[in-house]
Amino acid sequence: MKILVALGGNAILQHRGTGTAEEQFSNIETTCNQLVHLLLLGHHIAITHGNGPQVGDILLKNELAKNTLPSMPLDVCGAESQGMIGYMMQQSLDNQLKSVGLNRKVVTLLTQTLVDAHDPAFKNPSKPIGPFYSAMEASKLRQERGWTIVNDSGRGYRRVVPSPNPTAIIESETIKSLYDAGVVVVASGGGGIPVIRPKGQKVIRGVEAVIDKDLAAALLASSLSTEVLLILTDVQKVAINFGKPNEMPLEKLTLADCEKYLSEGQFPSGSMGPKVEAARRFVQSGGDKSIITSLDHAIDALEGRNGTVITA
Amino acid sequence: MKILVALGGNAILQHRGTGTAEEQFSNIETTCNQLVHLLLLGHHIAITHGNGPQVGDILLKNELAKNTLPSMPLDVCGAESQGMIGYMMQQSLDNQLKSVGLNRKVVTLLTQTLVDAHDPAFKNPSKPIGPFYSAMEASKLRQERGWTIVNDSGRGYRRVVPSPNPTAIIESETIKSLYDAGVVVVASGGGGIPVIRPKGQKVIRGVEAVIDKDLAAALLASSLSTEVLLILTDVQKVAINFGKPNEMPLEKLTLADCEKYLSEGQFPSGSMGPKVEAARRFVQSGGDKSIITSLDHAIDALEGRNGTVITA
Repeated sequence: MKILVALGGNAILQHRGTGTAEEQFSNIETTCNQLVHLLLLGHHIAITHGNGPQVGDILLKNELAKNTLPSMPLDVCGAESQGMIGYMMQQSLDNQLKSVGLNRKVVTLLTQTLVDAHDPAFKNPSKPIGPFYSAMEASKLRQERGWTIVNDSGRGYRRVVPSPNPTAIIESETIKSLYDAGVVVVASGGGGIPVIRPKGQKVIRGVEAVIDKDLAAALLASSLSTEVLLILTDVQKVAINFGKPNEMPLEKLTLADCEKYLSEGQFPSGSMGPKVEAARRFVQSGGDKSIITSLDHAIDALEGRNGTVITA
Repeated sequence: MKILVALGGNAILQHRGTGTAEEQFSNIETTCNQLVHLLLLGHHIAITHGNGPQVGDILLKNELAKNTLPSMPLDVCGAESQGMIGYMMQQSLDNQLKSVGLNRKVVTLLTQTLVDAHDPAFKNPSKPIGPFYSAMEASKLRQERGWTIVNDSGRGYRRVVPSPNPTAIIESETIKSLYDAGVVVVASGGGGIPVIRPKGQKVIRGVEAVIDKDLAAALLASSLSTEVLLILTDVQKVAINFGKPNEMPLEKLTLADCEKYLSEGQFPSGSMGPKVEAARRFVQSGGDKSIITSLDHAIDALEGRNGTVITA
């Protein structure tokens, strides 16, 4: 089957350790091991991934160096993280493919994602990124850089940025041409580098925002005409009444189910919400099915033995 | 004509300013303006670029943050710089192409470059990278990280890394397929991420080294079968007896001339030497011609009115 695999950030960098390159490579190897199984089964995959922990580290390094070197804006940091993660992913996957004798090209294509310059998210920055600050630092940064900084659940102050809705993958045609030619493409890392097209102009430019990687994945899967959007996360199945006595894992969801549960607020906005919404959008726009499950259960889920399957 | 354009690092980041993202975008716009002229004239180009100043800044940010976050090795920093520069380049060039009504795709492909694990350069690290250190810091870093650190012309102590000879561009087939389909590809940034293939193994892994971007460009141009390798630098022409009363700019060089002057040590190893060597290798391996000139004179040089042209 033709599948877009969307990997969570923690498939790459579990912040249990210190986040060294060795640790990240090691986590990516585990992840790639599962991806190789998919390819060995004859599936054709494209890959997208989160970048939260990595771009967080890049932002923090910028902060710690700010008296010596200019800090890069969020779009440039996102581009750096695509380079970093894409490199580790393509090398690791290529090595494992060679080890099992599968002859497939693996490449990373730098990806920009278009958002609407008038997206309401720009008036309501909500996504926390980067390091924690003291109240005094927060106040200074608000003045100096015009950042929106909020008190993050009492853990300290943190910058929040807009998380606008992705509307197009700028490089989608090239990604599709490679994918259709049998290349395993890593693309749209971190949801893609967010860009806007100012009104009345043909040009695009980067913006300080982050794009939900699963919503971008839904767009990418549609433009690649894959049959499946496979969203890999921490849990085997989506559940309603999560964390309550009547918690219920779900095996199947229709579009109507998704809409109902989303409107009921069953899924937290920072985690399962956008995954279910991405799954819904992909099927809504013509995809066969979306699957939400954990990395370990990807193959079981594809064969109908696990995971939550979303169909029309 | 089919052309691989090799841009010097200072075509992107002239360290006259502070190196902000705005400055880098602005320099890249100037560079892309010339590249658009090449495309308007009907040439088909691929682009490679240096990354010295950018990877230097990334390394320094790692250093300044080292008590808080793990430093990334040089291969990962190189990957980050490819993401950063590729993003700015593809966005800027795409915008300018749209503004003049040229409908061409522009993408960046993350690139790894193979070097020989037994390259003599690994026993003789010679390329200075990253920040300057005091004698005491240098001594500490030698012990803690096993780095080779040398006194850099009395300006302080600096880490030196191997600069091995590039032997293959790992992603060359995919780059060629895109290039042949008419896509403007940005590839092999900073000479590519250096990787070795340990003896008897199929896999590759990154190494702490830097690759001369012009030598990598010669390889890439050969694998793309371009007619021209266009190396853009600070000067209009290559000169012998550079800086002496009998300094003589050269309009034409044959392979024999290149070998003669290189063996005489006419060109400094850190700057014009590898450019002339890259120009020589490309022609030696079957390319029509190499041209060395400045960004401003690229078109004049292609039309035979400026620059140094290297042919068989």
